[in-house]
Amino acid sequence: MGSPVHRVSLGDTWSRQVHPDIDSERGTPPFSVERLTNILDGGIQNTVLRRKVESILQGDPVFNLKDHYFMTQDEQYEAAIQKKFHLEILARHLGWSEGSPERSYAERALSGYVNLGLHGIAMNALRSLGSDEQIAKWGQLGKNFQIIATYAQTELGHGTNLRGLETEATYDAATQEFVIHSPTMTATKWWPGDLGRSVTHAIVLAQLICSGVQHGMHAFIVPIRSLEDHTPLPGITVGDIGPKMGLEHIDNGFLRLNHVRVPRENMLSRFAEVLPDGSYRRLGTTQSNYLAMLVTRVWLLLTGILPYLKKSCVIAVRYSVIRHQSHLRPSDPEAKILDYQTQQQKLLPQLAMSYAFHFLATKLLEFFHSSYNAILNRDFSLLPELHALSAGMKAMISDFCTQGAEICRRACGGHGYSKLSGLPTLVTQVTASCTYEGENTVLYLQMARFLMKSYLQVQVSPGSTPQKPLPWSVMYLATPGPSRCTAQTAAHFLCPDLYTTAWAHVSARLIKDAVHHTQTLMRSGVDQHDAWNQTAVIHLQAAKAHCYYITVRSFKEAVEKLDNEPAIQQVLQRLCDLYALHGILTNSGDFLHDGFLSGAQVDMARTAFLDLLPLIRKDAILLTDAFDFTDHCLNSALGCYDGHVYERLFEWAKKSPANTKENPAYEKYIRPLLQSWRPKL
Amino acid sequence: MGSPVHRVSLGDTWSRQVHPDIDSERGTPPFSVERLTNILDGGIQNTVLRRKVESILQGDPVFNLKDHYFMTQDEQYEAAIQKKFHLEILARHLGWSEGSPERSYAERALSGYVNLGLHGIAMNALRSLGSDEQIAKWGQLGKNFQIIATYAQTELGHGTNLRGLETEATYDAATQEFVIHSPTMTATKWWPGDLGRSVTHAIVLAQLICSGVQHGMHAFIVPIRSLEDHTPLPGITVGDIGPKMGLEHIDNGFLRLNHVRVPRENMLSRFAEVLPDGSYRRLGTTQSNYLAMLVTRVWLLLTGILPYLKKSCVIAVRYSVIRHQSHLRPSDPEAKILDYQTQQQKLLPQLAMSYAFHFLATKLLEFFHSSYNAILNRDFSLLPELHALSAGMKAMISDFCTQGAEICRRACGGHGYSKLSGLPTLVTQVTASCTYEGENTVLYLQMARFLMKSYLQVQVSPGSTPQKPLPWSVMYLATPGPSRCTAQTAAHFLCPDLYTTAWAHVSARLIKDAVHHTQTLMRSGVDQHDAWNQTAVIHLQAAKAHCYYITVRSFKEAVEKLDNEPAIQQVLQRLCDLYALHGILTNSGDFLHDGFLSGAQVDMARTAFLDLLPLIRKDAILLTDAFDFTDHCLNSALGCYDGHVYERLFEWAKKSPANTKENPAYEKYIRPLLQSWRPKL
Repeated sequence: MGSPVHRVSLGDTWSRQVHPDIDSERGTPPFSVERLTNILDGGIQNTVLRRKVESILQGDPVFNLKDHYFMTQDEQYEAAIQKKFHLEILARHLGWSEGSPERSYAERALSGYVNLGLHGIAMNALRSLGSDEQIAKWGQLGKNFQIIATYAQTELGHGTNLRGLETEATYDAATQEFVIHSPTMTATKWWPGDLGRSVTHAIVLAQLICSGVQHGMHAFIVPIRSLEDHTPLPGITVGDIGPKMGLEHIDNGFLRLNHVRVPRENMLSRFAEVLPDGSYRRLGTTQSNYLAMLVTRVWLLLTGILPYLKKSCVIAVRYSVIRHQSHLRPSDPEAKILDYQTQQQKLLPQLAMSYAFHFLATKLLEFFHSSYNAILNRDFSLLPELHALSAGMKAMISDFCTQGAEICRRACGGHGYSKLSGLPTLVTQVTASCTYEGENTVLYLQMARFLMKSYLQVQVSPGSTPQKPLPWSVMYLATPGPSRCTAQTAAHFLCPDLYTTAWAHVSARLIKDAVHHTQTLMRSGVDQHDAWNQTAVIHLQAAKAHCYYITVRSFKEAVEKLDNEPAIQQVLQRLCDLYALHGILTNSGDFLHDGFLSGAQVDMARTAFLDLLPLIRKDAILLTDAFDFTDHCLNSALGCYDGHVYERLFEWAKKSPANTKENPAYEKYIRPLLQSWRPKL
Repeated sequence: MGSPVHRVSLGDTWSRQVHPDIDSERGTPPFSVERLTNILDGGIQNTVLRRKVESILQGDPVFNLKDHYFMTQDEQYEAAIQKKFHLEILARHLGWSEGSPERSYAERALSGYVNLGLHGIAMNALRSLGSDEQIAKWGQLGKNFQIIATYAQTELGHGTNLRGLETEATYDAATQEFVIHSPTMTATKWWPGDLGRSVTHAIVLAQLICSGVQHGMHAFIVPIRSLEDHTPLPGITVGDIGPKMGLEHIDNGFLRLNHVRVPRENMLSRFAEVLPDGSYRRLGTTQSNYLAMLVTRVWLLLTGILPYLKKSCVIAVRYSVIRHQSHLRPSDPEAKILDYQTQQQKLLPQLAMSYAFHFLATKLLEFFHSSYNAILNRDFSLLPELHALSAGMKAMISDFCTQGAEICRRACGGHGYSKLSGLPTLVTQVTASCTYEGENTVLYLQMARFLMKSYLQVQVSPGSTPQKPLPWSVMYLATPGPSRCTAQTAAHFLCPDLYTTAWAHVSARLIKDAVHHTQTLMRSGVDQHDAWNQTAVIHLQAAKAHCYYITVRSFKEAVEKLDNEPAIQQVLQRLCDLYALHGILTNSGDFLHDGFLSGAQVDMARTAFLDLLPLIRKDAILLTDAFDFTDHCLNSALGCYDGHVYERLFEWAKKSPANTKENPAYEKYIRPLLQSWRPKL
């Protein structure tokens, strides 16, 4: 414990002095940070491999992110394509195969600043929806990047409601071709990544029409740019959708198709095919189509969304031990801002949340893997739960990570507004995740429908075990707990069983309340769809409480498993307590509503919460160090391992183009303005 | 009522068709939108003047904002300086004097995209802190833009705690000069607007040292760039602090001073002066120094912060009647998304808040004006209340406007992430207001200290009227209301007296709770400063509740005054109800805590809230139209008056440089990648 390990995250710190204000925070660690890193990585062998990949990438100037904040949109795009190109060459050279952990660690190290990411998603869609021959043919071309593809689903006028998509694929038996067409302007494909300037092919989702009959959404491989000179092919109008809030390196694009013809073989036909004469044959269930979306969503949590919150915590917590402001007592020197209760209240719940979501996302991934094979073998019994969980958790994690990243950013005061802090980029990127891969409110409501069904399933056989076993995540609905919390002191609120039970109670009550409201309306004669819409807000609240409950439970269980690591267990236990209590206090009305908690008990919970803050604060730097992000990948003047915040901010600012280029406005406007009232000589 | 008025906000709508989905929303207005606009403008004559200014600016291509989203940072800077230059020339030509309503309407029309705004703040500081001679000399130079100034207070290592600023001004009696110096790197001035590349002078806040004695912060006029060629003067290191989350057109800058000498006359000396021999003379109270900061903060609310939320509402509400998605009932066509309860729950509270803050900020400005003269006449009795209110309300309004703008942005789904929607810019700009002019947590705590004092003042004479009258905003602390809410039906919650009383109760309870916690700690032997820090989170909560209460009360009073406008009064009353109830439901724990509300009553409040949504939804377009923002100033493809969302999004996107310029990555990376596995021919 505490023996020096060469952590890649130390950056070039070995060769320079660490700022004393952050050095002192690492003085006598009560637990092994290295061991905690291994746990987060899922084993020491993963930590070793990850650091190896990070070392390789950090040594290559092409992978440098330093100039990113000063680049124009065009330069960012070029740099991200360049990184992808070099990574591809490097990966072939080093034998990092597609989908290998090395590739995934490389993307972590590059903080997502590589383009052509949609190519992988398109290839996943091919593998889910294509026939074996199609997978063999297009998969090989895709693997070698002889074609570059994107996945084109969303349209200018239609998003989450797939059935509303307007693009048409009409079969022409005479030529055995599909005619892919955008019948209206709103049918224009809009948003697909890498489409604007990069890809050669698109997997286009379109309404299949055979002999005048509509057969719903199907996927078609459509070449859109010449493999010779990259110009758009006949009938194709393609371009970039313009500047965005973030992710400016990605060329999200639009695509209009004017009667574009593709051979019959280009319809992905694992589950449906069109015979030469135009007759339509369904070959399997369409439910399997969910799988590709599910795996994307579940993977996204751990690798695509959560890192933004973790990095924001690292940056804000490190800065908060360097920044001094005002005096706790008049006679003292200026205090580290992390010593203020208000700063702790902002940052430490975000840190606790980072850990809570880490264990939750890991558990979900395990659940996904364990149910995946069953689903492939056409046992769909777990699919509704998997679908609901992936939807609800994606909504909750992206919501809270976005909120948390912004809290961290603002906790850094003015400097958090500087792009050089790294925080604005984290915030403007993570907020996109609230919309992509399913808009969060829609996703929460999908969870809510699952909860309503589960609740009604319990009601069928009230008091006894339901005939069909309930999925694990909603099992608690069948076993009501106590109707009053038993806590009598603040210390009682540090009991995981107590707060997990409290969350189960509130979640179950809100689900029941939502269902009853819908049923009451229906009984009064309101149409079931109107009844759903008129209670959607109540269902939303229930779904959110359920997600919180699942997170508390999974965090509790993860901590319990760390029996052989008592020091780490203790510090994570505090984070788990903080996470649960923070949620109770933020939603205290839900706990007080039916008297489950009394006002006095809420005050006890608050005392327990406030008392936890200084305890966690002591380990805050260690807990953020454990994420083991390199300075390179944090790319933050405020968040470097060595704590030299102000030097870096100054050095980096000096490199800004505004300081290295001529002032374009001086001769044209400033000088004339200054001289406009000067007496003529 | 309903007769056509030439509203500038119609844009070029007169000449084209309005989208039927938005046209139908304006069909039979139950109140006069024009009249509501007049009320918001503070009188019909203001509406007329504002529209005149807007017409003039819209006719001038220099003031066009269209290309803004496609510009690099350098181009944005140049465009904003150009606009300032042209506005200055135009204003002289038309006789729009400094500080005139025309100037303020011009800035509204330009959405803040004019630089050199700090010049005005520096001139205000000169007028507050300078002697009459100084005001005469520098004021004239500043008025004519013969010099351009900024106000340089914040340093790299110090922000809100002014006493911690490190810059020094040491008097040298031998030459009768001050030596202005940045003794450390962290003393570098950091953040002042227009400093990076534009200004010629700075009002520098520095620690005054005379004959070795420190006298605290004073202000000094320091020339920093040559009036001949704009190069930095000797001893000056000045530049741009680099890219930011938003406000990229502004050149926020840094400034290091290396023993820069300025004449004795350059210290602003209304309240203190240094005599030639170096003796220091205080000439007045320093409290007056607050005034300049106060007026900036109070003005900011109505003109610098609230417009972001109002515009976000306009854009999101308009888009939500054009966007259709999914079906409320399977047999219906796709519904307008504003017809979903969840969309109403997102947007309508923001709309209600826009109105609530409008009336609050207007009232604050009136209070400021009425107390200003008293303060100038050295009657400081109103200063503590004015200070607390301006601090707390700035914190609340900027917090909620930022949160609300982001809610509106996300409510537009994917398109809300496109800069062309206008929303990302609104969000990234308004969030800066949470930090500038005082960090919000610090400001809330200043309010909290005022509340603690007021509460203790009541306790001195419990049960009777306190000897010294309480300030109006905290008068309610002396007159406790009922301890239980009397509502028995949902309809009872639509009574303004009922919910205002409820807010007063909760606010008073939380203030009492916070004070008691602090006092209990102190009685147990904890030092008063530690006790404050250990209860800061509780005080924060109390200050927020108080601010909410004041807003509800001021909204209620504003609506009551509209007796002669019954139709408008009715629609605003609903917004007031919604604002109050939204707050109660969001903070229901605070109302349930001591049994003031029962769980059943919270359910009634929720019913009342949910029932209000469809009522307000009917008028939502009219209520946003009433803000009368021009298409020009909204600069949003989603938010135009005529509702032609998709056409504009497409047309604007095509103009993106990514579509008009060569792809820099194709020959270098994409082509080699595509051909890397191609068999050699």
